Amino acid sequence: MQRSVFFISDSTGITAETIGNSILAQFEGVQFEKHRLPFIDDAHKAEAAALRIKTRWAQSGDRPIVVNTMADRNLCDIVATSGALMLDVFAPFIGPLEDELGTRHSGAVNRSHGMVDFAKYEARINATNYALTHDDGMDVDYAQADLILVGVSRSGKTPTCLYMALHYGVSAANYPLTDDDLEKLELPSRLRAHKPRLFGLTIEPTRLAQIREQRRPGSRYATLKQCKWELEQADRLMRQAGIPSLNTTHVSIEEIASKIFDQFGIEKTMF
Amino acid sequence: MQRSVFFISDSTGITAETIGNSILAQFEGVQFEKHRLPFIDDAHKAEAAALRIKTRWAQSGDRPIVVNTMADRNLCDIVATSGALMLDVFAPFIGPLEDELGTRHSGAVNRSHGMVDFAKYEARINATNYALTHDDGMDVDYAQADLILVGVSRSGKTPTCLYMALHYGVSAANYPLTDDDLEKLELPSRLRAHKPRLFGLTIEPTRLAQIREQRRPGSRYATLKQCKWELEQADRLMRQAGIPSLNTTHVSIEEIASKIFDQFGIEKTMF
Repeated sequence: MQRSVFFISDSTGITAETIGNSILAQFEGVQFEKHRLPFIDDAHKAEAAALRIKTRWAQSGDRPIVVNTMADRNLCDIVATSGALMLDVFAPFIGPLEDELGTRHSGAVNRSHGMVDFAKYEARINATNYALTHDDGMDVDYAQADLILVGVSRSGKTPTCLYMALHYGVSAANYPLTDDDLEKLELPSRLRAHKPRLFGLTIEPTRLAQIREQRRPGSRYATLKQCKWELEQADRLMRQAGIPSLNTTHVSIEEIASKIFDQFGIEKTMF
Repeated sequence: MQRSVFFISDSTGITAETIGNSILAQFEGVQFEKHRLPFIDDAHKAEAAALRIKTRWAQSGDRPIVVNTMADRNLCDIVATSGALMLDVFAPFIGPLEDELGTRHSGAVNRSHGMVDFAKYEARINATNYALTHDDGMDVDYAQADLILVGVSRSGKTPTCLYMALHYGVSAANYPLTDDDLEKLELPSRLRAHKPRLFGLTIEPTRLAQIREQRRPGSRYATLKQCKWELEQADRLMRQAGIPSLNTTHVSIEEIASKIFDQFGIEKTMF
């Protein structure tokens, strides 16, 4: 079974897409063909969206689904003329919140992904710069680090650091365990000083070999034997040093970040 | 007016936080103190969460608000014993979708931010590596680029490229316009070949000067005069070359990315 889904927003469409994906994931038997229509903020664009939805319906034979975060009722009504199933993301929550807070909602165009606060924005950008300059053991002055990820090459450290920086303004460095560290089973001294802020990433050997093979085909670095040895030694090293760790094989970047924050009691919210 | 809000999830809490922030942004007069409680996936953790919410209520005197994406009704009921206003994110949409699709939802723990698809995951990681190696004019072989951002130093190119890669698997390079390019008012030849994929980022001169001053205090690079000159020349160059551009001063990374995708007709959805 297949269905077309349109995420429609007067802004970026990120909220519509995020909640839409979460809800749709609960219908495992259905294949959804997803479309994002952001910045639908006037009648002309709403009419074009409605036409597109109707066209898709005619082509596919199945009624499309709209996940909608537009604030303007008139625009919602225009899109609804398409005949699609309209799921309005905000509507169910506005009433209970108005009652609870004793105040009316502004009805303004969704501003949650607009940049409103320079200080918070700068925190994100600074953390991103931090992650870039402290990536892969390049700069090893960790005084400013909120946390430091350790692991073998290609265990997921860099994207995780970038994600934590971009979204949460968390300054995360990362250090790749070298063959030398792994042979000695010893943390380099510059890491030992920061033990309470260390977190380890591990991964299944076969998966690591796949990833490395893509990067350096036919290399010793990509052999299963080498991957196994590095991961076993890294596990041993982290256990000995008492560093918490996470196997990233079946875990998304978002989930890795959340688990790390949970471990360190970091409760920073997204910007 | 102030209120405590708890984003509660059996998984990362990203969906709860995203939709919660969007809804709360519509109540501008209220200051929300936000807490994220992810991975609440058993009765013990749910009880601890309820206790925390009750404690916060006792301290603040105001009834807390819970934005909830837990799938398990029993866990929801436990959290609800806190007495907080419960906003269940999925509940309003499951019924209409079950009717429309003629199938029951799985009721499974929210998996939308779990890694389920290695191919998609690899696309994100590969795009992130691409952005890192093609950042700041480092590698200028743009054959594989989905798009190339141009602009003066510190106009927001790097975080935007990383965001597009991490979230959408879009391979974006970026090229900083040099004083030489700006004096000649000419695109470097290696960019000219890729004109249909170029997009310009601009920024207000005072804001750029602030950002540069933070990075290199007291430098000529950070003077308002230099910033103004660079931005004026860059504007001229982009107009002459017919490159679309966006002023990023009051725009978040998310919004910049969405607008660029819109411009190029890229409809990739998030993973």
